[in-house]
Parts: sequence; structure tokens; C-alpha cells
Amino acid sequence: MSVFARLKAAALDDWNSYVDHAFIRQMEDGTLPEAVFQSYLVQDYLFLIQFARANALAIYKSRTLDDMRIAQTSLNVIMNEMNLHVRLCERWGLSPADLEAAPEHRATVAYTRYVLDCGASGDLLDLHVALAPCVIGYAEIGKRLEPALLANPDHPYREWISEYASDGFQEAAQASIAHLDRLAELSLTEKRFDGLTAIFAAASRLEADFWQMGYDIADERRNHPAGIKPLGA
Amino acid sequence: MSVFARLKAAALDDWNSYVDHAFIRQMEDGTLPEAVFQSYLVQDYLFLIQFARANALAIYKSRTLDDMRIAQTSLNVIMNEMNLHVRLCERWGLSPADLEAAPEHRATVAYTRYVLDCGASGDLLDLHVALAPCVIGYAEIGKRLEPALLANPDHPYREWISEYASDGFQEAAQASIAHLDRLAELSLTEKRFDGLTAIFAAASRLEADFWQMGYDIADERRNHPAGIKPLGA
Amino acid sequence: MSVFARLKAAALDDWNSYVDHAFIRQMEDGTLPEAVFQSYLVQDYLFLIQFARANALAIYKSRTLDDMRIAQTSLNVIMNEMNLHVRLCERWGLSPADLEAAPEHRATVAYTRYVLDCGASGDLLDLHVALAPCVIGYAEIGKRLEPALLANPDHPYREWISEYASDGFQEAAQASIAHLDRLAELSLTEKRFDGLTAIFAAASRLEADFWQMGYDIADERRNHPAGIKPLGA
Amino acid sequence: MSVFARLKAAALDDWNSYVDHAFIRQMEDGTLPEAVFQSYLVQDYLFLIQFARANALAIYKSRTLDDMRIAQTSLNVIMNEMNLHVRLCERWGLSPADLEAAPEHRATVAYTRYVLDCGASGDLLDLHVALAPCVIGYAEIGKRLEPALLANPDHPYREWISEYASDGFQEAAQASIAHLDRLAELSLTEKRFDGLTAIFAAASRLEADFWQMGYDIADERRNHPAGIKPLGA
Repeated sequence: MSVFARLKAAALDDWNSYVDHAFIRQMEDGTLPEAVFQSYLVQDYLFLIQFARANALAIYKSRTLDDMRIAQTSLNVIMNEMNLHVRLCERWGLSPADLEAAPEHRATVAYTRYVLDCGASGDLLDLHVALAPCVIGYAEIGKRLEPALLANPDHPYREWISEYASDGFQEAAQASIAHLDRLAELSLTEKRFDGLTAIFAAASRLEADFWQMGYDIADERRNHPAGIKPLGA
Repeated sequence: MSVFARLKAAALDDWNSYVDHAFIRQMEDGTLPEAVFQSYLVQDYLFLIQFARANALAIYKSRTLDDMRIAQTSLNVIMNEMNLHVRLCERWGLSPADLEAAPEHRATVAYTRYVLDCGASGDLLDLHVALAPCVIGYAEIGKRLEPALLANPDHPYREWISEYASDGFQEAAQASIAHLDRLAELSLTEKRFDGLTAIFAAASRLEADFWQMGYDIADERRNHPAGIKPLGA
Repeated sequence: MSVFARLKAAALDDWNSYVDHAFIRQMEDGTLPEAVFQSYLVQDYLFLIQFARANALAIYKSRTLDDMRIAQTSLNVIMNEMNLHVRLCERWGLSPADLEAAPEHRATVAYTRYVLDCGASGDLLDLHVALAPCVIGYAEIGKRLEPALLANPDHPYREWISEYASDGFQEAAQASIAHLDRLAELSLTEKRFDGLTAIFAAASRLEADFWQMGYDIADERRNHPAGIKPLGA
Repeated sequence: MSVFARLKAAALDDWNSYVDHAFIRQMEDGTLPEAVFQSYLVQDYLFLIQFARANALAIYKSRTLDDMRIAQTSLNVIMNEMNLHVRLCERWGLSPADLEAAPEHRATVAYTRYVLDCGASGDLLDLHVALAPCVIGYAEIGKRLEPALLANPDHPYREWISEYASDGFQEAAQASIAHLDRLAELSLTEKRFDGLTAIFAAASRLEADFWQMGYDIADERRNHPAGIKPLGA
């Protein structure tokens, strides 16, 4: 049983609150309001900037060239993943500079800085466990939503789903699962497992908060059309 | 004009959303529900653990013994400040171990990890600017609420207000203001001021979120008496 | 006048102890003993691993996508630069695994960890100033030694000199010089200049030590053919 | 068998090169030239500044209040230990400001930045293993040299030896040994032991280099009375 499978089993409610959030179910059947998706996507761009930093931190904390190259590949994947966001946001009239200048919502701050701090205060295993819900969860969601594309040729979220269902992204997630197992051989004792589960559970729940944020920002926007303040308050 | 005064003027709305929050006004007139205060205080204990870490980070990032000693003093002040929390929480039957084991609310995570990341990614000035709203704001609040103690000999929040109105805490805040000015001489250009203001504004707003969290947790508790999940979700 | 030019002028003796070291003069005229070059090159491979980490640290510490991409490019350049070392070392029967497993000499430890600590304790400008002697100095050396290749078609150090005289490497050095100027606009006050000069001078001198190490290891090897101990002692 | 005992056994030659260095034997019999001791002590002051930073890093990386308090105690011990150096150096006409402004020798740079980087790139166990040779080794040396004080009432290094033979310092070393064992329960697998041994061996050897540096600086001073350059070159 992989370390990932053990973590998921140990934090199943938290995991499900994330991968089975209303946002995902509405995306699957195409009823997710565009305003919600758009609010999410802008924040996800800001999120990816911080996740690129987190993968750079993983390179910095690596002690073998192998570990360095794994994190370097992730870093490059993320820097490219941003192109999806740029492409989609362009249609709404948002430039990359607009995206980078958007105020970070508190849910974005909470999730990204939590992961970065896990890495800065812990070791490479802590950091990769904190990163796991994002990489592996998005692949799981992409796979689950892919059939919806076959059923609906005009699915409004085709590009997003295709990206995360793609072979490239699925392989990246498998590589992350295998990498966790290799790192665990070095420093995972039974006594440490609870601590790693706490990180994994927190990151999963912060992912769930991140979906919820899409709805919250869309609500705020409707109520305060003049614009949101930094940190979304 | 001190750097602190400039930052406060440049982010006045954010600052006021923090120091003039309903939580403060209710604390002043003694109408703050105890359940709200208690929810806040438990999280504030967890917050202080992270703020002790942030001051340790400041020691680590210092390049002179003077800067090291300033952060060492703050670290010791915080480790002692926790005694107030321990004393107050004991009355509600909460031990220090209970406090340390309490789940961090997302507002606690957002604020503390944001500050820590400002320090890890920036220099000592970035870190001290991110820390400033807490230290200096609590002193401002303590001073403002002190007259309420004279007016009401049985003020329910006497101990809390006295702590932050005390000479020791007021002096610590003055020292922080002076220290910011010394650090700014080294690396504050006009071009950098906007970036520092963004940090100061974000930290102020995350403080406002922190007061709000007291009400939110108390609400959740009323609605879900079985207990809150990690990260308060 | 660029920040780099100012730093070089302020630490000229240290800079010259590096770019005008006997190692460089012997490399230029082709009299550098191969054993010295080989000892240097193995350590330089270990050095590049740490410099890749330092560039990853620069990505982590960046606050704009532009700064992130600049450091990402450097990271990729370094990961490729290692191929030169692998290619040259293969001729001596050393595999990449042999190189990665070689014990770090104390001069390698001192230089690389000094740079990494400048970055961890300071801001992005501190880190890039600490990195500057390597990137910009090797370009200066490559340019200066290039004519020796024309004069001697069988120059024993042709590949090494060509790498650092190449347009690609020269442009990378020019980009570093320009990037320092942009970073300095944000946080370089006159009062800070001495502190940056101290970093630049120390890094230059640690580069000079690094050339010297080639001779020292070759001497130790001759005297203790059974092999060197970790840290070269 | 404690983790420390296992590490010492696994890196015995490196350990002995440190605790049985000529510097220690000459200190024991009182023949260590004062110029050598003085050169060492000035660098050791600079070393302690960095070791205080390393203990602050340990607080920052801690995940329990217990671990934080242990590192906080070490930090305070070090800040006090510096008083010994200030007191001894005063007799040679060196003020604390002179000490802090002294140029760091490359051996000081290599050792301190190596330890700091072990902590920044690894977890709390890596950091405490890197710190162990200093704390525990000085206690071992203090204990071993203490009888020499009884034999010679005018022993020239009485104050230094007394400090490290003192009950307070001996207890700090025992606490470090016990703390390593507790940390190891969380994250020491058999597969990781070699990596920790490499850190322990390197730190021990860098300690040996540090003693040697005392002789080297004294030699340089004799040959270049005009003063040494930064990094001792």
C-alpha cells in the first residue's frame, strides 16, 4: 500500500470534502456558474505562482540530483500549466499582468503559505506530503470528470478537464505517488505517520476551502460590484 | 514621521478594520460574549506559538548582535505572554496541553503562515513589517481600552486589557517602531514602500479576520456542539 | 555605472585574487597540470549542485513572475552546464554517480554554504550579489582566455574555455548584471552598499580559494595516493 | 545505545581528529601558545553568533513547544557563553565591537554555514545532529581537561576549561544527547542513518579544522603583521 493510499485512508473525510466538493459536481454536470469558475481560476493562477515557489523550495531542500530533477520537472509543469489559465482568462479580457496583480483571497493565502511553511519547517517528505493533495487530487478529479466530456460535446469546462485528465498530468501524479514512497523509506517511522496525516488532512481541507472560495468571491462581487479588497475582505 | 506612521497612513482602512473591529468595541464596553472571547483566546495561543517561531526566524535572519538581541527579547516576551492565556484558560478547564492540541482555524493558519512566509522570502525589514500590526496594534488597543477599566471595577476583560496596556507591552511596541526605522535606513527605497505597504495592509486585514474568527467559531460551536474539525471547517 | 561595476571597484583586490589567480594564468598558457584541473572539475560539479540549489532558493524568494523566470533560466543553465563536466570527466573514467559521490572539499563547502546562507538570511539582492562573482567572473575569464584558443589549436583546455566564452554564457552574465541593477532599485540604499560589498568580496575570495583547492587536492593526492577523506582533510 | 553513541562509533576517526587534536593536547598541558588561543577565541566568538542563529533556526523549525523551549534554552546558553569570550578578550584589549567586526576566517565560514544549511535543507534531526559535535564534544573535552586544573593551580586556560567542565555545560550536553534520541524516534529509519553519519562526520572534521585555524592565523599574523584579510586569505 503506497504512502499516499495510507494518507488518503487516514484522512478520508477531509479528502472527500475536497474531491467531492459541490464545485466538482457542478463542474461535472456543467452547471457551475461561470462567475464562480472565473473567480476560482484567477485565484488558481495566484496559487500556481506560490506552488512554483514551493517546488523551487523542494529543489533547494533536495540532497540528491534525482530529487532535484523531480522537483525541477514539477516546477516546469506548473510554469506551463499557467498557460491554460492565461488562455482561458484572455477570453474574459484578463491579461497575465491583470492576473498577477489580482488581490490574493484569504483562502489562497491560507493554503499556499501553509504548504510553504510545511516545507520550510520540515523536511522534503513533509513538503511533498503537503503538495500531494493538489497534484494527485487534480489528477483524480480530471480522471473522474473525463467521461462527462464524451457525454457532452459542448461541455463548458472541456479545456480544464482535459488538462487534468491528460496523460501528461496523470503520469505526473503517478510519479508523485512513487516519489512519496521513496522519500518515506528514508524518514517515515510509524510514530511520524500521524504528523504526516495531519499535514495531508489540512492540505485537503484547504483545497476544499479553495473551491468554496469561488462561490464566496462570486457572491461578494454580486453584492459589491465596485471590487474586492486585498485578501478578499 | 516614522515608517510605522507612514505605513499606517497608507493602509488606514485596513488598519481601522483591525483596531476598530466590533470585537474591540464589544470588549471595551464589556458586552463581548465570553464564548467569542474564549474561542479567540484558544486560537491566540496557537497564534503565539507561530509568532514565537517568527521571532526565532528574525534572530536567524539578523546580521548584527543588536538585531539578534531585539528579536530574542520579543521571543521571550511572547513565551511569557502565553502565561496569560494559560492562566485564563485554566478557569475554563483547559490545560496547556489542551491548548497546544486545539485545531488551528483557517484564519490562524492564514495570518501566521503569511507572516512567516514574508520573513522566509524577504529580508528582516519585510518580516518586522509583517509582525508590526500585531505588536503595535495590540499596544494601541490596550491603551485605548484602559479607561474602560477605571469606569468598571468588574470589567470582565480586565486581565487581557491590563496586559496590553501595561508599561512593559507599551515599551515593547515603542521599541518595535524605533527598530523599523533603523532597519528602513538600510534597505527602504521609495520604490519599495508600496511593497511594504501591501504586507502591512495584508497583515492588518488578517488581524481583523482573526477577531471575526472568534464570532465564527462560537457560531459553529452552537450549531455543531460535537466539536470543530481541524482548520475549523 | 552598474551595481556590479561599483561592487567590483569597491572590492578590486578580492576580485583580482580570483580572476587573476595562477590557476587562470596557467590555464591560459596551457601549463595547468591536468591533475589540478581534474581535482578542480570534480569539485566544480559538486559546486554546481549547490549553485542549482541557490538558484532554486532565488525562485523561492522571488515576488514577481519575472524574477522567478530569471532564476529558473539560471537553474536550467546550471543543470546543463553539468553536462560539460560529465563529458570531460568521462574521459578520466568518472561517471556522474562517481562525481556526485565525491567528498566535498572544505573550500567547496565554505563557498557554497556561504552563498546559500546569504540568500536564506537576506533578500533576493543579497543572494544575487553572492552569486554574481561566479556567473559574471567566469564570463570575464572565458572572454579573456578565448584568444589563447586561436593561438593554440591543440589547447588542452579548449572545451572549458569555449563554454564560458560562448555567446550563451556571455549573455547570461550580461543578464545578471542588468538584473542586479533592477533589484537594487528596490532596496539598495547608500547605507547598505558596504554590506553588499562585504558579500561580494567574500564570494570573490572564496572563488580564489576554490582555484587554490585544485592545487591542494592534487598535492594531497600525490602524498596520500590511498585517497582523500571527506572534506579533503 | 544512544543515537549520539552510534554516530560517534560510526565516525570515530573524524570524532577523534576533533577531540584529540594537538590544540587540545597543548591546551591540556598548558603549552598552547597564547597567540594560537587568542586567534581561536576571536573566531569562536564569531562562531557563537552563527550558532545562536542555528539555534534560532531550531526554534523556527520546531513543531512542539517542548522542542521550541529546548532550542530557546540553548540559544540563551550561547548568548551567555559569549560573555566568557568578552571577558577573556578584554584582557587583550579587544572590545565586543572589535570581536563582532573581526573578519571571519574561511574555517569559521565553512563550519557555521555548513551547519546552518543542514538545518535549512533538512529537518530538526538533521540540524541537531549537525550541532551535536560542538555541544557534546566541548563537554567531553572540558571533562577530560578538568584534572589538569587540579594538577596546575596556575593553569593558563583555567577559565576556558572550567566553563566547559562546569555542571551547567555538562548537563546541557546530556540534554542534547537525550533530545537526539527523542527526535530520532520520529524520523530515524535505518536507511537514513548513513546520511546522518555523514553530517556528524563532516561537522566533527570541521571542528578539527577550527582548532587548526588557530595555528594558521597565528602563523599568518607572524608573517603578515599588518593584519589579515577578510576570510583570512
